[in-house]
Amino acid sequence: MRYYDSLARLIAQFQKLPGIGSKTAQRLAFYILKMPEPEVREFAAALVEARAKLLTCSVCGNMTDSDPCHICSDPRRERKYICVVQEPRDVLALERTNEYRGQYHVLNGAISPLDGIGPDELNIKSLLARIRQEKPEEIIVATNPNVQGEATAMYLAQILKPFDIRVTRLALGLPVGGDLEYADEMTLARALEGRKKI
Amino acid sequence: MRYYDSLARLIAQFQKLPGIGSKTAQRLAFYILKMPEPEVREFAAALVEARAKLLTCSVCGNMTDSDPCHICSDPRRERKYICVVQEPRDVLALERTNEYRGQYHVLNGAISPLDGIGPDELNIKSLLARIRQEKPEEIIVATNPNVQGEATAMYLAQILKPFDIRVTRLALGLPVGGDLEYADEMTLARALEGRKKI
Repeated sequence: MRYYDSLARLIAQFQKLPGIGSKTAQRLAFYILKMPEPEVREFAAALVEARAKLLTCSVCGNMTDSDPCHICSDPRRERKYICVVQEPRDVLALERTNEYRGQYHVLNGAISPLDGIGPDELNIKSLLARIRQEKPEEIIVATNPNVQGEATAMYLAQILKPFDIRVTRLALGLPVGGDLEYADEMTLARALEGRKKI
Repeated sequence: MRYYDSLARLIAQFQKLPGIGSKTAQRLAFYILKMPEPEVREFAAALVEARAKLLTCSVCGNMTDSDPCHICSDPRRERKYICVVQEPRDVLALERTNEYRGQYHVLNGAISPLDGIGPDELNIKSLLARIRQEKPEEIIVATNPNVQGEATAMYLAQILKPFDIRVTRLALGLPVGGDLEYADEMTLARALEGRKKI
């Protein structure tokens, strides 16, 4: 099979993206070809601009296009909570809940000895400096509920002990709207363990 | 939830693409932010270039970046067959089989009265002109096996009658690797109808 060259290049570019196989890449490329040319230029500009403007917030380590980021610089956000997450997308997930009004701190990863990622590779030093300076009341550890996330949470709990600060972890249990029948044993065990009086 | 502006714009752009919802758009946008900047520029350039170079082949109506397209201008392709398809992507699907060495003709649609698409909206006139000039032996109608595709095939068969030319249609039947049990009744009925001696 031979595509014409510029189409082939576009398909190859789409295929680089995560979760985009050859069929989807082809479908997306054909869609681009049917889009009005100004819209395609706009798309291309958005790609370049988002990447070019990318900064890391010097306070929390989140991705941003202004430093400090819009959360760190928002005076309405409470200073007494710092929620520690692994990735910038976790900040977005928590923001979507509209429940949390505190600060964030993005580690940019999790402890994973097999991948050669130890505490020094993570954005932890700046967290300690921040705690010393801002003196928050509580650190909410919201790393992922998997081996690496748990290891990171344990490590944080340990190094935060000297600070005499409340360190909490997100609750584990059944997902809302889920079916007990389909929950895995680990989740069910944690849900039992964390049961609450009603 | 608030993304920073340039990220929000990029996510919105990805969401315009077919089959890309808000979660996937966000995932893709974050992936772009983690890509090296030159690669992002390359991606953007591929988008603009593929769209800018887009031409319609004046012979077959296929999408191309050179006119006539690489199939129409290939001297090794047989001139006695013209395979009529609805869309440029159908050409690619047939090319992938590596079985067909003839020409193509792209209608850019199918007859669909409900959508206001009649024969005049399709690339049919140039097909007739081409048949008069090139005098192929066979027209293989490879429109989709659905109502619109069938209507188009019937229409073509009718207007091609005066040419005294062989007009064929792709076989309908069970998909290879499929399960008879899961075939719908229409497909099964067509498979029976088209049964062959072994």
